Amino acid sequence: MEQRILAYFEQRPNEYVSGEQLSELLECSRTAVWKHIRSLRERGYTFEAVPRKGYRLIGVPDRLNAAELLAALRTRSMGRSIKLFDAVESTQTIAHKLAEQGAAEGTLVLAEQQTAGRGRMGRRWHSPKGKGVWMSLVLRPQIPIHFTPQLTLLVAVALCRTVRKLGPDVPVAIKWPNDLLVEGKKISGILLESNAEDERLRYVIAGVGVSVNLEKDDYPDELRSVATSLRIASGREWSRAELIRTFLEQFEALYELYHAEGFEPIRSAWEAQTISIGRPIRARTPKGDVEGVAESIDEMGALLVRQPDGAIVKLYSAE
Amino acid sequence: MEQRILAYFEQRPNEYVSGEQLSELLECSRTAVWKHIRSLRERGYTFEAVPRKGYRLIGVPDRLNAAELLAALRTRSMGRSIKLFDAVESTQTIAHKLAEQGAAEGTLVLAEQQTAGRGRMGRRWHSPKGKGVWMSLVLRPQIPIHFTPQLTLLVAVALCRTVRKLGPDVPVAIKWPNDLLVEGKKISGILLESNAEDERLRYVIAGVGVSVNLEKDDYPDELRSVATSLRIASGREWSRAELIRTFLEQFEALYELYHAEGFEPIRSAWEAQTISIGRPIRARTPKGDVEGVAESIDEMGALLVRQPDGAIVKLYSAE
Repeated sequence: MEQRILAYFEQRPNEYVSGEQLSELLECSRTAVWKHIRSLRERGYTFEAVPRKGYRLIGVPDRLNAAELLAALRTRSMGRSIKLFDAVESTQTIAHKLAEQGAAEGTLVLAEQQTAGRGRMGRRWHSPKGKGVWMSLVLRPQIPIHFTPQLTLLVAVALCRTVRKLGPDVPVAIKWPNDLLVEGKKISGILLESNAEDERLRYVIAGVGVSVNLEKDDYPDELRSVATSLRIASGREWSRAELIRTFLEQFEALYELYHAEGFEPIRSAWEAQTISIGRPIRARTPKGDVEGVAESIDEMGALLVRQPDGAIVKLYSAE
Repeated sequence: MEQRILAYFEQRPNEYVSGEQLSELLECSRTAVWKHIRSLRERGYTFEAVPRKGYRLIGVPDRLNAAELLAALRTRSMGRSIKLFDAVESTQTIAHKLAEQGAAEGTLVLAEQQTAGRGRMGRRWHSPKGKGVWMSLVLRPQIPIHFTPQLTLLVAVALCRTVRKLGPDVPVAIKWPNDLLVEGKKISGILLESNAEDERLRYVIAGVGVSVNLEKDDYPDELRSVATSLRIASGREWSRAELIRTFLEQFEALYELYHAEGFEPIRSAWEAQTISIGRPIRARTPKGDVEGVAESIDEMGALLVRQPDGAIVKLYSAE
């Protein structure tokens, strides 16, 4: 019934449709029509209601659609298989299961909402419905386990390039190792989880969360001072589908470059987009606190920090 | 019923017990007695049957007992919690589940038999009932992911020391990275599976399979030329319980040394017990085949191979 109402409106863009017209179309009472309109509003559709003129459809919800995403996607392997869910606990958990069952490299798990999204170090990740990109990508990189720090940085570069491409007005930069910041506030999180046999990586799940269209009120109090969204930063709505597509394309290009030429080009790209190099840094490590100035990323993906006494310490992203 | 038969025999060591005695004891027919004896034989008990004298119990199966293992175990954390199963698909799979559920470091999964035991590189591991040690140990090492090659070598050293301690007559040595060989044939396999978030290891499952009391006939044809057992190598039965205990104690000592002093003492111990150093080696790697002479293990746990042209290549155990 509601599909028929939507189709009727879509055939009459910008026109007012009266309650009477709808009740004749659907062969139901005016009250029933009103109830359907209310239900559509709850699903995210916006109607203007003008007395004596009727209803006008002025906004459709931003819903992801796997078929539409795929149709416009120009990649070889990334996102060629898309599993889209309305609400899940965590896209990471689902991607792990798919990987265990043999899912191909590039399989993408997307959700409109995560009820228990995971961040780094066991933290929660706030993933409200329809407002962000909450996704997990299955990777099967042909690299030994000790190269995973490089992959973490690679994902950050791909995401930073994506935001810069779609919003050149947004001053985004990478904070070591892989947070994207806009004016000091976080707009995204990256979490790599891997499964290995000896030093052979069986698979890596790259989790990416981007706060796209969240507004200030969408954040719980404790996050408001540290988190922002692309919408808040730019003052406009962003297309989540376009962001997903662009990320997959940027990521695939970098990932192929990495397999062909190694970490060096990724390292240069990371260093060009970060705000962490040349800055003072303080970090807690298993062997005590480290303070100093971040100088560069080494060939393994570790951050080289020069301490006040001149000695260089290597930091890995887990620390 | 069978417990009562066993208790009766155990009170009369080396005595013959007639079928008539047993049928009176159990208040059942001679046929029923015979059926119980047959069933006990299937469970691994050995009876001598002499006409007109009766049965004599001459062999009890070597069964593992978690309480007995624990009572004699002198470790702080390794094996302090033991999950013993009769038959499982793979102790690795069970240990993964326990680790995901938060099992403490040192939790040990043991099985009398594995129906789908896993070896390295996705191979099968032959794990017949009651003849070997098939175990998986949950570890939560405080090391970054790129140090896992070191752990692989550490487990091999612990197992090699165990065999040398219990059987100084058995000429066991480590073949790179972590196989134990006796006279060129394999007696054990080690498989480390790890789960990480970025570079932080969440947990590692150390799988250890030791062919203890297998006889030639216990091996399928295709394994007979490459595999052997401690029993075949030494000509005597080994206590599996003693082997498990000794391994846990040796492993714990090395693991604590590793956390306190790093990889250097482990590397020396590995090099002292290997047959691989100084020998020609050929290996297949993602970047092509490597041929040369193995020179040493580097500080990360990689094998340094000098190629005919003098160049040094690093090999990781997965290759």
